[in-house]
This record gives sequence, structure tokens and C-alpha cells, in this order.
Amino acid sequence: MEKMPDKFEKASVPVQVIKINPAGASGVEDRVVVEKALTVYLNGEEFVTMICSPGQERELVTGFLCSEGVVSRPEELANMSFDHGEGLVWVETAGKSGLSEKLFLKRYLTSCCGKGRSSFYFANDARMARKIESDLKLTPRQALYFSSLLEEKSELFHLTGGVHSGALASRQGFDCFAFDIGRHNVLDKLYGWAFAQGYDLSREVLVFSGRISSEILIKTAKMGCPIIVARSAPTDLALDLARELGITVIGFARRDRLNLYTHPERVLVNP
Amino acid sequence: MEKMPDKFEKASVPVQVIKINPAGASGVEDRVVVEKALTVYLNGEEFVTMICSPGQERELVTGFLCSEGVVSRPEELANMSFDHGEGLVWVETAGKSGLSEKLFLKRYLTSCCGKGRSSFYFANDARMARKIESDLKLTPRQALYFSSLLEEKSELFHLTGGVHSGALASRQGFDCFAFDIGRHNVLDKLYGWAFAQGYDLSREVLVFSGRISSEILIKTAKMGCPIIVARSAPTDLALDLARELGITVIGFARRDRLNLYTHPERVLVNP
Repeated sequence: MEKMPDKFEKASVPVQVIKINPAGASGVEDRVVVEKALTVYLNGEEFVTMICSPGQERELVTGFLCSEGVVSRPEELANMSFDHGEGLVWVETAGKSGLSEKLFLKRYLTSCCGKGRSSFYFANDARMARKIESDLKLTPRQALYFSSLLEEKSELFHLTGGVHSGALASRQGFDCFAFDIGRHNVLDKLYGWAFAQGYDLSREVLVFSGRISSEILIKTAKMGCPIIVARSAPTDLALDLARELGITVIGFARRDRLNLYTHPERVLVNP
Repeated sequence: MEKMPDKFEKASVPVQVIKINPAGASGVEDRVVVEKALTVYLNGEEFVTMICSPGQERELVTGFLCSEGVVSRPEELANMSFDHGEGLVWVETAGKSGLSEKLFLKRYLTSCCGKGRSSFYFANDARMARKIESDLKLTPRQALYFSSLLEEKSELFHLTGGVHSGALASRQGFDCFAFDIGRHNVLDKLYGWAFAQGYDLSREVLVFSGRISSEILIKTAKMGCPIIVARSAPTDLALDLARELGITVIGFARRDRLNLYTHPERVLVNP
């Protein structure tokens, strides 16, 4: 295996994490994957905001434009210039590709605000997500129990290898369970259930099988859940947002260990 | 563990698959996860098409509308009626929620055509994806080598647990490798690379770490790759599309075994 190319090194960053296992809790440096927004301007007009890993941005934008039918031959891509710091790229095409541009509706809901990595890139989200104030607490043992219960309940769906799952949990155990091929849909199903029941989500732990991206974190904030326990990894942008929005993020909660990333005050390490 | 509720049973369907392992090849029935399109009409206007697992559709739509700020109190959801066969739902809200509806830009690129599960739900895709004619062939051994090479090359990124990876492979090995937090972005990065190089993708195998959903399959078709080898599971809708579009789908390619789902004529089981 060759050395990791430099262009890939920026794909992850160090973070401080509290690792908790049967031997106790210890603060260590770990690495999480970087997530960034890249807004594409096509012939002067905002076209799409892609949420991506850094690296191979030129290939990403080119491939996306090919895939959407905006360009079909290399010479149609007249120019592409990047502002990597702000996450912006300007693309000029040589021919008129009016049809595709008109057919195209933005992949994401709104534009990138371009004001920095941890800013909201969805206008609607900026309006709706607010800092969560909740004195809900849990122990590492509870978090691991929820994680293993999720795994157990997902067992039958694991046969097909193709779905994510999630639950809303309280002291009584799981109040609602959902699964879906789409990560976001899992949260929407839980949210919809709680909304219809009039549940107070500031007292519920969100348990999730998948990765915690910024979009998942924002949805958690909108739901109003103060704690998310995931079996997988968070991204750096999700952790930035979690710090700002007052959400406790627990990742890699499997078997007898977990990583505590943000707002540790809700986790009773030595109850 | 309780019995699987009936509402979850429709989440997977049986398919015929050729399982290949060191003992040989055998045709068996296996199950794959169901993927369906659900188009939401909000107060008479088409609002969004969600790609989801069947089950808990009411919760899904409710949660999505909450999440997007369309409704904020249960009484604002005046009515919701489903046509499950066609994958349509009509929602009426009690109050005016003009702002959110205007802010909202469709989550997916175009509307659901509503003509059945295996139809294209992206207008742009219908225009661009055409049946792949390629006499490219590979052996199970090659497919497994590509899968293990992908795993090996992804090793460093696995540290962070948060990315998908993919490659374009030919007889010479990998011609291009990409990784990203977004599954679609991986394919776009590979497509963009091949496009700029003027590569003939009808001679390349697409190797992929993630699940093969319909959107991944459609992108594979647009790229023109005749064979996709994935380490994870396909969905039923992706397999329907693969049959129509002439793409060989190999899933669960890990260690010494794989599943061959569609167009087996490109796999030389006994070379």
C-alpha cells in the first residue's frame, strides 16, 4: 500500500474525544472525517451546493455536470476556478446547455452561505435549529444498552444488508423504532411519530445506526433531541454544529465502548 | 426479540441470485431490500419525491414536513391520503405556510413519473441513460481481487470510519480511485476523472464500497460502465433498472464469495 497522497490527508482532522470503555474514561486525540460544502456557480448562476470530502474537487464537479447532462464533451468545459477556502467554484461552459440547466432543480434545499465551515448552509435550517437546553443525562451503560438494542431490533433487516435504523429512547427503553434505506428518512420517521404523539423530544435520546453528518446533526437539532448515540462515526462539521447547538454526540457506541465527542456534561461517567 | 411486524415484511422481496464461492456457483433465492419512490403533493402542488423503504410512510411524510418547517403543530396537518400502489401522497395543511414552501426547493431533481416501481423517476435520467452494450467480461476471481484492492486502498480512511470509496478497474488494475463522505460523490469523482481523460468506460469495471441504490445504478448507467462490483447490497429497484439497462450487478463481493444478480453473461464462472 502506497503512502497516503497529500491531497487525501486533509480529508480528516484531529479532535479531542473522551473514550469510555470498561477500564474507565480517558481524553485522547482521535481523527474524524472532514465534511465541507462546495457551491457550484454555472455560467454566473448558483447551480448546486454539494456536501463532500475535500480532494478531487475538479473531478467531482466535472462528474456531477456530466451526470446531470450539462456537459457531454470535455471541450464544453471552458473554465473552472476554485476558491477552496470559501468552498466555491465557478464553471463556464462553452456551448449553450439550456435544456439541462432548466431541467435541473437544486440538489440541496438552499444555497451555501459561504461564511465558513460551521455555518449553516441551509437557509431553512438556520431559521429552525436553535440551541438545545435540556438537563437530560445518561450513563455510558445506558448508551451502550440502547446501541445494542438497536442492533438487536435491526437483526431481521440486516439479512438484506441494506437499511439504516434508529430509535427514540427514554428510561423505559425504546419508544419508537424505524428503519429505512435512507439515513435521513429514519430520522424523519421518528420525528413524524413523535410529532403526531405530541412527544417531548427534549427528554429523548436519539439512537442511530449510521454516520452523523452535518445534515443528520441539523435534523437532530430540529427534532430537539439533546443526545445522539450512534454506532458509527461523526464528521468534523457535525461536531462543530453539535457544539454550537448544544447536542451531546456519542459515536462508535458498540459492545462495551464508545466515544464521547461533545457536551460531555450530559454523560454521567461515574454515577 | 418480537416477531417482525407485518408492516415491515414488505421491506424486502425475494430475488434469484447466483452465489459464487470456492465450492462453485449455485442459483438460489435470496432477499433484497425494497426501495420505492413516494411523491408528496402539498396542497395540490407537487412538493418532493422521497426515495424510501416501505412502511411508516405517514410518519415519514409528517417528519419531513416538520423538518422542513412546513408544519409546526399537529393540527396544521389537516389531511393526508395515500395511493401506495402509485407511490403518491396528498397532504393538506390547515394554515398558510407560504414562506417554507417558497424556501423549499425540491429535494430530488425532478418528479416521480408515478408509472411504476422500475420506471425512471428523474426526467433528466430518462433522457440520458441508455442500455449498455458491452462484451466486457470478468471472472469471479477478478471481481474479488478488485473488491479486496478497494478495501486495502481504503484502509487509511477507515481510521475515521466515515467515507465510501470506489474505483475504475481494468485488466491493469485500478485506473482511478476516489473516496468521499457521499456515496454519489464517489461516482462523480470517478466519472469526472474518466471524462477529462477521455476514457472509454464501456471497458471499465466500477468497484464500489457502498450499497447499490437506484440512484447509484442510474449513475453507473450514465457513466456507461457495464459491470458494477460492490461490497454491499443492492436494492430491488436498482436490480430492476440493471436488468433494463444491461448492467451486470455483483454485490457482497467480500473475501472469497460474491452474489451475481443481473446479466450473468459477463461473468466467466468457469473460464
